[in-house]
Amino acid sequence: MGNVVDDLIARVFDDVRSLDAGEVADYIPELAAVAPDSFGICLATIDGYVYEIGDSRHPFTIQSISKPFTYALALADRGAEAVDAKIDVEPSGEPFNEISLDPLTERPRNPMINAGAITAASLVTGADQATRFERIRAAYSRYAGRELPFNEAVYESEARTGHRNRAIGHMLRSFDVISGDPNDAVDLYFRQCSIDVTCRDLSLMAATMANNGVNPLTRERALTAVGVEQVLSVMSTCGMYDGAGKWLVEVGLPAKSGVGGGVMAVLPGQIGIAVYSPRLDAHGNSVRGVAAAKALSKELELHFLHVTRASRSSIRARYNVTQAPSRVRRTPTEQAVLEDVGKRSRIYELHGDLLFTGAESAVREIGSVDEGLEVVVIDVRRVDDASDVAIRMITALRTQLADKGCAVALVDPSGLLGQASSSINPAQRGGRVFADLDAAMAWCEDALLTLHCSQQRQPASMSIEDHPVLDALSPKQVSAFVSQLESRTYARGETIARRGDAASGFYLILQGQVSTTFTDVQGLTHRIATLSAGMTFGEMTMFLNSRFLNDVRADTTVVVAVLTTARYNELTSAAPELKLALLESLASGAYEQLDMTLRSVIGAGRI
Amino acid sequence: MGNVVDDLIARVFDDVRSLDAGEVADYIPELAAVAPDSFGICLATIDGYVYEIGDSRHPFTIQSISKPFTYALALADRGAEAVDAKIDVEPSGEPFNEISLDPLTERPRNPMINAGAITAASLVTGADQATRFERIRAAYSRYAGRELPFNEAVYESEARTGHRNRAIGHMLRSFDVISGDPNDAVDLYFRQCSIDVTCRDLSLMAATMANNGVNPLTRERALTAVGVEQVLSVMSTCGMYDGAGKWLVEVGLPAKSGVGGGVMAVLPGQIGIAVYSPRLDAHGNSVRGVAAAKALSKELELHFLHVTRASRSSIRARYNVTQAPSRVRRTPTEQAVLEDVGKRSRIYELHGDLLFTGAESAVREIGSVDEGLEVVVIDVRRVDDASDVAIRMITALRTQLADKGCAVALVDPSGLLGQASSSINPAQRGGRVFADLDAAMAWCEDALLTLHCSQQRQPASMSIEDHPVLDALSPKQVSAFVSQLESRTYARGETIARRGDAASGFYLILQGQVSTTFTDVQGLTHRIATLSAGMTFGEMTMFLNSRFLNDVRADTTVVVAVLTTARYNELTSAAPELKLALLESLASGAYEQLDMTLRSVIGAGRI
Repeated sequence: MGNVVDDLIARVFDDVRSLDAGEVADYIPELAAVAPDSFGICLATIDGYVYEIGDSRHPFTIQSISKPFTYALALADRGAEAVDAKIDVEPSGEPFNEISLDPLTERPRNPMINAGAITAASLVTGADQATRFERIRAAYSRYAGRELPFNEAVYESEARTGHRNRAIGHMLRSFDVISGDPNDAVDLYFRQCSIDVTCRDLSLMAATMANNGVNPLTRERALTAVGVEQVLSVMSTCGMYDGAGKWLVEVGLPAKSGVGGGVMAVLPGQIGIAVYSPRLDAHGNSVRGVAAAKALSKELELHFLHVTRASRSSIRARYNVTQAPSRVRRTPTEQAVLEDVGKRSRIYELHGDLLFTGAESAVREIGSVDEGLEVVVIDVRRVDDASDVAIRMITALRTQLADKGCAVALVDPSGLLGQASSSINPAQRGGRVFADLDAAMAWCEDALLTLHCSQQRQPASMSIEDHPVLDALSPKQVSAFVSQLESRTYARGETIARRGDAASGFYLILQGQVSTTFTDVQGLTHRIATLSAGMTFGEMTMFLNSRFLNDVRADTTVVVAVLTTARYNELTSAAPELKLALLESLASGAYEQLDMTLRSVIGAGRI
Repeated sequence: MGNVVDDLIARVFDDVRSLDAGEVADYIPELAAVAPDSFGICLATIDGYVYEIGDSRHPFTIQSISKPFTYALALADRGAEAVDAKIDVEPSGEPFNEISLDPLTERPRNPMINAGAITAASLVTGADQATRFERIRAAYSRYAGRELPFNEAVYESEARTGHRNRAIGHMLRSFDVISGDPNDAVDLYFRQCSIDVTCRDLSLMAATMANNGVNPLTRERALTAVGVEQVLSVMSTCGMYDGAGKWLVEVGLPAKSGVGGGVMAVLPGQIGIAVYSPRLDAHGNSVRGVAAAKALSKELELHFLHVTRASRSSIRARYNVTQAPSRVRRTPTEQAVLEDVGKRSRIYELHGDLLFTGAESAVREIGSVDEGLEVVVIDVRRVDDASDVAIRMITALRTQLADKGCAVALVDPSGLLGQASSSINPAQRGGRVFADLDAAMAWCEDALLTLHCSQQRQPASMSIEDHPVLDALSPKQVSAFVSQLESRTYARGETIARRGDAASGFYLILQGQVSTTFTDVQGLTHRIATLSAGMTFGEMTMFLNSRFLNDVRADTTVVVAVLTTARYNELTSAAPELKLALLESLASGAYEQLDMTLRSVIGAGRI
C-alpha cells in the first residue's frame, strides 16, 4: 500500500495510460528507436522528495525542454536588457520551427521557438564552443542535482539532418540577431537538445524553478529569483507551442515540452512535475504528457490562479500590558500605575508572510491608533518571510509613530526586518529591537512607568531590614527570623535552583534580578517570571515540602538572604507561630504570582 | 501626513504624472471631450479598503474593460463548454478590432478582442434585449458594489459610428458563431461599453475578482470561483491586446484596459488595482495606466509568479501525551502507564493553508510513522483553509492508519474537513472528531489506558471512606475529619466557584467530573484541568486564605464532600495537628497539579 499521494498519482497514471494515440518523433533514427509506450510521472516537492511512478528513471534526450534553461543562462550571462533586445517574449501563433521573425521587431517572437532558442544559445558566454557547451551542461546539471550526460549519437544525428535549424541560424545572422558564425549557435543548440535526462531529473529541474532557483536536494542555486520570474512568465505564455491560452485556462502552470517525450510543469513556490511518454500529438507535445499534466492540475488543484480564500489578517493578536502583563514582577505601586495607564500601550503580534498585502493591513491598523498611545510593540517572530516593500512599510510606520511621540519596539530575534542595529543607535528614530516578546513588554511597561509613576520605583538594592516580607512580623519575630538568615551572592548567569531540585530554602532578594524559566519538549526555554529586590522565591516549595517546578537563574549579580530548610524546620518547631505569620505574609503574594503567571501565559490568548 | 501605503502610491503617482504622451480617443466626440490630463490611481484590498489618489471618482465609460465581465456572465449563463465552443482563449497577434476569425477554428481568437466580446454578449441570456442589457448592467454593479449608470450620449455616438463592429457582427453571423440578429449582439456590446465607472469602481471590480468573485464591501457574490479562474487566465494572456507576453514578464498581473482611459489589474487573493488616464498609446492602452501598473507591480512586488520563499511545513508541532499530557488528572497508576506507553501516541498540529502541497508534506510525515503507533490526533484548528484534494488526502490517510491498527482523531471544531459526522458513525473508519485539542488528547490517553492499563482504572464514583486523601490520616483524624464534611451535589454545567471568589472550602470529589477554566482577554475559555472522583480542589486557596484563580464548573453531575472554611478553622484550632497532616497529604498532589498545568500549557511549545 503506497503513500496517499502515491495513490493519487497512480490513479492519474492508470487513467492516462489508456491513451495510445500519437506517434514517436522519427526525424532521426535514435528518437524513433524508443519504446513508444514508455510512461513515467514524477512529482518533486521543494523539500526534495520525489514521487515516482512508471518509467521514471528511463533516460531520453531533453530536446526543447532545454530552451527555458538556456534562456535562463543567457539572462544570467547578459542581463535581461541585452537578452530582451534580441528575443521577444510574445506568444507565437506559428509552429515552433518556423523560419521567420516578427515582421515588426525583426526578432524571434520568443525563446521557446527554435529561432529564439538558437539566439539564446548564441548569447551564452564562454571562450570557445567547448566551454560554452560545458557551461550549458553544467547549468542543467545544477537544476537536476546530478551530472547530466551528453548523448553523442542523438547529437550526431541531429547535426547531420538539421537543415531547417541551420536555415534559421543563417536567417538570424542575416538580420544581425546573432553575431559570429551562425553554425556555432546552431551546433550549441543541437548539443543542448542532446543532453540525457530522466523523468525524475526533469521533476527536480522543475522543482528547482519552483524553489526560486535553488535545487531542493543539493541546496545549490541554479538561477536568481528574478531570472526564475522572467523564465516562468515566458513559459506561461509560450511554453506549450500553440494553444498557450488554452493551456493556461486548463492547466494553469508554466510548462515546457520536448519531442523526446518529456513535459515539465512548475507550480511556483510549491512543486515540480514531469511526465515522460514519447508518443506526440500534432503540435509535437507528448500526448500522455499533456493529458497527465491536465489531470494532475485538476486532481491536485494546482492552477496557479486558483485562489481558495481571502488572505488572512497579518495581525494575529493585539492587546495592552494591562490585559497581558510582562513577566517582570512589579511593586504594588507600579502595578496600580500600569493598571491605570496600560491602555496607552499596544502589542501587535504579526504572523504569516509579510508581503505587500499583509504589511498593508498591518500598517493600516497600527498606524490609525488613537492619539493617546505612547508605546507600541510589533512582534514579528511568527512572520515567515518579509518582502522588501513590507520592510520599507514597517520602517516608515515606525518613523510616523515616533513623529507622533509614540515609542516603537520590534521583537525580531532573527533580524527579519534588518533593523537589529537600531537598538544601539539612538539616532535611529524607530525605537528598539528585542529578541523576545517579554523583554519588549518589560521595556514597554518601563516606558509607561517612567512617564507616569512619580512615586519611588523599585529600588535596585535594599538591606534586609527594608525587605517588605518583614512588615508582617512583630519586632521579636523579625529578630528571630533575621538572625537565622544566610547571605549569598550569585554571579550573573548562575543557576540558583533547577527544576526537580528539593526545596532548599526561602530566598529574599536584596539586590539584582532573578528569572524563573521552564524548558519545553522542544528545548525552548520560556520565562515564567522575573523577580527583583524586595521579592522572594522558594517559599512555596519549602512550605509544601515539594520540589522546584522551574529553573531559577541569576540574570545579574544577585544578593539574597536565605532561610535554609534546616533552619526553617528548627525555627518553626521552636517558634511555630512564626511559620503561620510567614504564611499569612506570603499568601497574597503567592496568589498574585500565580495569577500573573496565568495571565502572562494565557492571558492574551497567547496559548 | 498620509498612511504609509498612501505615501507609496503617491510616489508612483508623482513619477508617472510627468508622462504626457499619447492621445485621447477621438473616434466619437464624447470621448474626445474629456480632460486629457485626468489621472487617478486606486488600490482596493480584499477587505474592502480603497486607497485613492487623484481623479479617483471621475466617471468615464468602461469601454473594453467590460469584456471580461460580460465573458464571465456568459460563462455563468451557458457553462464553460458552450462558451468555449464559440470563443477561443488564445492570445492574438492582431489588433483588437480585426475583422477576422482564427482560420483553423473559425472562431474569435479570444473574448478580449471585439469579435470575441460581441460573441460573449450574444451568449448572455434574457427574454429580450432590454432584459439582457439590464442583466449585464446589474452584473457589473455587483462587482462595483453600487448601481452603475448607463451613459446614453456615449452609447448613441458609438451606435451611430460603429460600422466596423457591425461588420464584425455580420461576419460572426455568417460563420454561425452567433445566432439570431447580429445587430442585437453588437447593440448589446455598444451598450455595455457605455456604462460609466470611476477609478474607484474599477479597483473594487478588480478586488472582487481578487476576492474569488465576492465583492469585498457588499459581500455579494458576483461570480463563482471557477469562473474567476477562467476569466483571470484569459486576462493573463489576452487582456492587454498586443504585448501580452511582455505584460506578463513586466507586470505579471491579469489585466484589462479600455479606450476610455481605464486599466484594471488583479492580484488573485490579494488586491485590485485601477488607473484612469485618458491619453492612449498606439495599442489603445492608457499611457499612464500602463506605466502606473508597471511601477506599482515593481514597487509593491506584486508579480503573480513572484515567489519569495519555499512554502513552510504544514506541521507546526508534533509530540506525544508523555511530553504534553491532557489536562485530565490521572491516578498515579494511570500516570505511570502513560509515562511508559505515551510514545505510542502522536499529536500533530497543522497550520496555514492546506492545499495540495501542505497536505502532501503532512500526510508524508504522518503516514510514515513507526509500526508501534497506536493513536494519532490531527489538530486542524489553525488551518485557515483546506482544498478538496487536501480533504481527500487526510481522509485517505485516516483510513490507511486505521488499516494499520492506529486510531485517529481529528480536532476540527469548525468542520473544515467536513467529517464532523464520523464521530457518531462507527461505520466510518477514520475515527473521532473533537471540538478541542484537550478532549482529543484525553481520548488519546483513554485509548492507551484501555490497551495497556490492566489495573483498576479510576472509579466513576466512590464513598468518602475510599477517598485517597484519607490515606494519610490516622483513624482518629479520619473520624474527626469526616464528621465535619458536608455532602453537596452540583448539576452538569453548574458553576462551583468563580475566579476571584474567596476560599470557600476543601472539596473532595466523590463522583463526576469537574473542570477548572480560565477566560482570556479575548473571551476565550481555556481548560486548565479536569478532575474526577478521588481528587480534590479548593485546598490551596483555603490554606493560603486567598481567592480562586480559575472558574470551577461541573462537567457532569458532581457529588463532593466539602470541608467549609468555617469548619476548617474550627477544626484546626481544635486539632492543629490535623492541618499539618492534611498539608502533608496534599503537598505532593499540589506539586503534580501545578506541574501538569505548566506542562500542558507550555509543555509542547504550545505557548
